[in-house]
Formats: sequence, C-alpha cells, structure tokens
Amino acid sequence: MKKLINDPQEVVRESLAGLAAAHAEILRVSLDPVYVIRADAPVAGKVGVVSGGGSGHEPMHGGFVGKGMLDAACPGQVFTSPTPDQIEAATSAVNGGAGVLHIVKNYTGDILNFEMAAELCQARGVPVESVVINDDVAVEDSLYTAGRRGVGTTVLAEKICGAAAQRGYDLARVAALARRVNANGRSMGMALNPCTVPAAGKPGFTLRDDEVEMGIGIHGEPGRERMPIRTAHELTAQMAATILSDLPFAGGDRVIAMVNGMGGTPLLELYLVYGELAQVIRSRGIAIARRLVGNYITSLEMAGCSITLLKADDEMLTLWDDPVLTPALRWGI
Amino acid sequence: MKKLINDPQEVVRESLAGLAAAHAEILRVSLDPVYVIRADAPVAGKVGVVSGGGSGHEPMHGGFVGKGMLDAACPGQVFTSPTPDQIEAATSAVNGGAGVLHIVKNYTGDILNFEMAAELCQARGVPVESVVINDDVAVEDSLYTAGRRGVGTTVLAEKICGAAAQRGYDLARVAALARRVNANGRSMGMALNPCTVPAAGKPGFTLRDDEVEMGIGIHGEPGRERMPIRTAHELTAQMAATILSDLPFAGGDRVIAMVNGMGGTPLLELYLVYGELAQVIRSRGIAIARRLVGNYITSLEMAGCSITLLKADDEMLTLWDDPVLTPALRWGI
Repeated sequence: MKKLINDPQEVVRESLAGLAAAHAEILRVSLDPVYVIRADAPVAGKVGVVSGGGSGHEPMHGGFVGKGMLDAACPGQVFTSPTPDQIEAATSAVNGGAGVLHIVKNYTGDILNFEMAAELCQARGVPVESVVINDDVAVEDSLYTAGRRGVGTTVLAEKICGAAAQRGYDLARVAALARRVNANGRSMGMALNPCTVPAAGKPGFTLRDDEVEMGIGIHGEPGRERMPIRTAHELTAQMAATILSDLPFAGGDRVIAMVNGMGGTPLLELYLVYGELAQVIRSRGIAIARRLVGNYITSLEMAGCSITLLKADDEMLTLWDDPVLTPALRWGI
Repeated sequence: MKKLINDPQEVVRESLAGLAAAHAEILRVSLDPVYVIRADAPVAGKVGVVSGGGSGHEPMHGGFVGKGMLDAACPGQVFTSPTPDQIEAATSAVNGGAGVLHIVKNYTGDILNFEMAAELCQARGVPVESVVINDDVAVEDSLYTAGRRGVGTTVLAEKICGAAAQRGYDLARVAALARRVNANGRSMGMALNPCTVPAAGKPGFTLRDDEVEMGIGIHGEPGRERMPIRTAHELTAQMAATILSDLPFAGGDRVIAMVNGMGGTPLLELYLVYGELAQVIRSRGIAIARRLVGNYITSLEMAGCSITLLKADDEMLTLWDDPVLTPALRWGI
C-alpha cells in the first residue's frame, strides 16, 4: 500500500485538519466528536441540512459544507458509518430554531446511526426529518444494504435542498423536496480497478487485467456482473440504458446529469464518457439541462465512473442555479 | 491497459467533444485544427490569452478556457506538443485587436511550436508576446527540457493573467505580469504510481511497491531520486523545503499555495498533505493568502501530488480574486 498518509488510523482526522486549514472562511471542523460545520452555523431561522457517512468518498460530504449546501457533515472512518454522537452533536450545532434535515444514504449502519441520533435530538426538542437516498439501480440488496444503495443522487439532493433551506423553506418543505429528488434520481457505476482502505492495507477486491465490475458500489460492493472490458461507448450505453429504463425517463424530460469519477479516473476519460452519455440522452429526446463532470462521490483511488440522472422540474433547476459556496461546488459567489 | 476510451488514437478528440457538449455556454471546440476557445471570442479590444500543450493534464488547459482565464487552449495528443497550425489558428481566432499572450510550459516541443506559430501570426500582423513557465525546482534539465520544466505555476499564471486581460491590461502589461508570476512561482512533484498513455498501452515507468519518485515530471520524467516511501509529513516537508529555499521564500511573504493531485490520488490524501504544508509554511512565518487543493495539472491517472507556491503581491491577489467562469475554476459568477 502506497498512500500519502502518516498513520492509517489518523487519516480522517488529519485530512479534516487540512480541510479546515484550507477553507476557514467557509467551514470549521470539530474534532470531539468529529464533524464539519458551516463557519456561520447555526443560521437563525434556517433549516439545517446535515449529511454524513463513511470517509473515502471526498469531496462528499465535507466538501459540500458551506453556504447554499450542507450546514454540517459527519464523516466516519474510511468506509465506516459515523456514530450517533457525531450526528447528534452536528445536528444540535446547526439547529437555528427551524429544525434539521438529515440526508442519509441507504446503508444499514448509516440508517441505524442517523435514526438513533434523530431520536436523541427530537427528545431534546430539535425537530428532525430524515430522507433516505436509495438511487442505485444496479442491485436491489447488497453487502451493506437492504434495498437499493444510496449514491450519486445524494450530491444533487444536497445542492438542491441546501439551496431550498437557504431560501427559507420550512423543514417539511425541504424534506418533501429531498424525497422528490430521490424519487426522480437514478444512478449506476462501474469499476476498472479497486481501491485500498488505509487501515486494511490491501485492495477490497480484485479484477483481472481485462475485466470490469458493472454496477459496483462505492465501497467496492459487488455489482451486477464482472465482464470483459468494452469500449467507453458500450459501457456508457449499458449504464445509461439501465438507468433510463428504471424511472423510466421519457422523451421531453429535462435532467441534471452527473458523470462522476470514482477517484482514479482521468478527467480526459470522464469527459469522453460524458460525450457518449450526451449522445444517448439526446437520442431519447431528453434534454440535459444542467451537468457535473468530475470527482464528486468517490471511492478513494478506485478507477471507474458512475452516471446519475435526475428528472428535474422548474423548482429543482432554479434551486440548482442558486449561489453555492463550498470547497467542492462554488458558483454565483 | 483498462481505460474508459474507445480508440486510443481518438481519445483527445472524443474527450473534447464531451467538454464542448458539457460547457457550451462557456466554450467551443474547433476540430480542424484542434483548439478550445471561449464561446464569445474574440473579445474586441481585449488581449487574448492562449496556452496549450500535450493532453493528459486535464483540467489544464482546456478546463481553464472561459471568462477571466484563457481565451483558447491548444491540446496536443496525450503528452505530445500541439502543432504550430493549431496554435496559429487559435491565436488568430482570439485576437480582438489588442494582441495575444502565449503562456508556454518549458518543454522543447512546446517552445518550438509556439515560437513558430508566434512568428506566423506576427507576420500576419497579430502582435504576440510569449512567456515561458519554468517553475519546477526538481531538476535543471530533463528528458524533454533544456532548463527547468514548466508545471503548476502555469495554472496560477493563467488565472492571474486571464483576469488582467479581462480588466483591460494591454499586451505588454499582461506579459510583464506573466513573467513576474513565473519569477515568483516554484513547484515540485512526486509520484507513487505511474500512468499509461493510451496509445502506448503500458505504464511509462515502474516503481517498486515501497518506492516513490521524488521530483517527478508531469510526463513521468525522472525526478531527483527514487526512495522508499515515507510518511506524508516527511514527503511534504521535503518538497516544501526544496521549494522554499529555491526562490527563496522568507518570513512575511504571502503565498498562493496549490496542492495538486496527479490524477489518481484521493482528495482525502491531498487535504492531508495540505494540512502538513500549512504547518511548514506557518512555521516559516509565511502566510498562505489563497490556496487550491485538488486535481489541476494532472498526469492521467498517476498517483502522487505536487506543491506550488507563488510569492504574491497585492496586484496578483486582487486578480486572483477576480471572477472566473471556466469548467474547472469558477467563482464570483
């Protein structure tokens, strides 16, 4: 294992120290318990938006903390759920009197720990609504999940709901919006090469030199099939067809599209995949209204990509365009 | 070789097609000859800023085309210089009557082809100034270079000079500024793992499982030494010390700092390195006034990072903060 780290047990804390040092005007980092929080939190009268999950998916979630997106993020150890005390502390810290939305990816540990934290907060008078993201069309159950896994739509939900909270939506309305985003978002990923969790010291899975894993999870969980590598044209078409037929998306729809790198794939390749995706989408009579191309929800240095499509309405697009100031997404400010 | 591509010979063109499809409001792509150009070019009365070089370093340079940064970028094949006809066509296309600045990284092929293009343009009445970036402190000459290689300072020069041109600086003043940025910028990189050029099909070099290349070039050119991997703390300190003593930087200086990923290194690790760098810099009495942490000048999927420090004056910082709207750098718009 070759990594730019010191002690495998301290990677998350040391990385967060760097995040805090780099972006002091946007966010702060609490170390006991560990969470990342907007520099100006709590914002009085504003719904707080909190997410979290295992580390190793950067920039998600800590890189999305800031004005117009998340109020706080709770990072667990690498590929490990955050604990209830982290989530409870972050939720309390961002409560500006209007309650807090939890955006939770569908993994068993995340669900349990966010639920426990929400109960603790509610018992202390902090209203909490939780929305579970389960957008991965690849598999119905998986290694760490009952039902579908939560992946790329999380990024889009954090942007859109963060903007809604910034505009002053109340908690019920932000939560309803998050559920609508989840209901209209679908994702699928694939891997060319695995990644290594620092504390494990060896790759989480292996692939042959000519093999890819189609439908991979963001922790390297098995997908739909291992198959010989094909062209980007064929791989993109396969992922897009699976996603498009699932919602289903239809001619006339407008979508927010994300081509996301898993961490170890060059931007040169991600744009090539985006070009392929844009052709597929156009051929179905669907319009890509907004898009992201880059590393947004990663799996350490895994090579591969995922595609997320969100069927967007006017409200979502307006909120998407709202100003955002975070380490990883920034516009209008 | 496992990559998200179709034909190794068509990677650059197909990736540029995706770039154009994703960012039509910012830029256009010409395919014969190949260049990337601001959607609204030429801007009448504004100095044009053009850069270019081999592909495989994305987002540099095509991802930096847009308002407040580059007017055009000329991408060669992967790790191969662009040809004079590309550069000449791009230069002519962005000339708004105030002349064009070429920002050229110091590689023999780039220098030759940019010089030839500049002569052709000048013969046709387009004033061209060229500034060579040679900021890499690792080695004095290298595989493709007489003198020092041009690396991370290129990104900072493109932002600062792009802002100056946007403000209406004349050609002589933008060129003088670019020379000042180069004179005050220093970089050094290191690699944990190599990358594979698609047309070559195999890694450009090999490293043992416990070995890193200190002072690596962005095409995998040999650096200063191969050595056993050390902690991020030690590796960062070594790079920082070499950079700091070269200019030299001194207590009281303000710097723009960039911790840049080579393409295959997780953001988790880059922020950890940034945290280490911030400590070194602070211990020297130097202030980090602005910073970038992420993938800006990459080497395909190479694992590793580079550090760039620019001793910045008030003018550079003001121009740094100016609005920019490109695929890879965006703020204030």
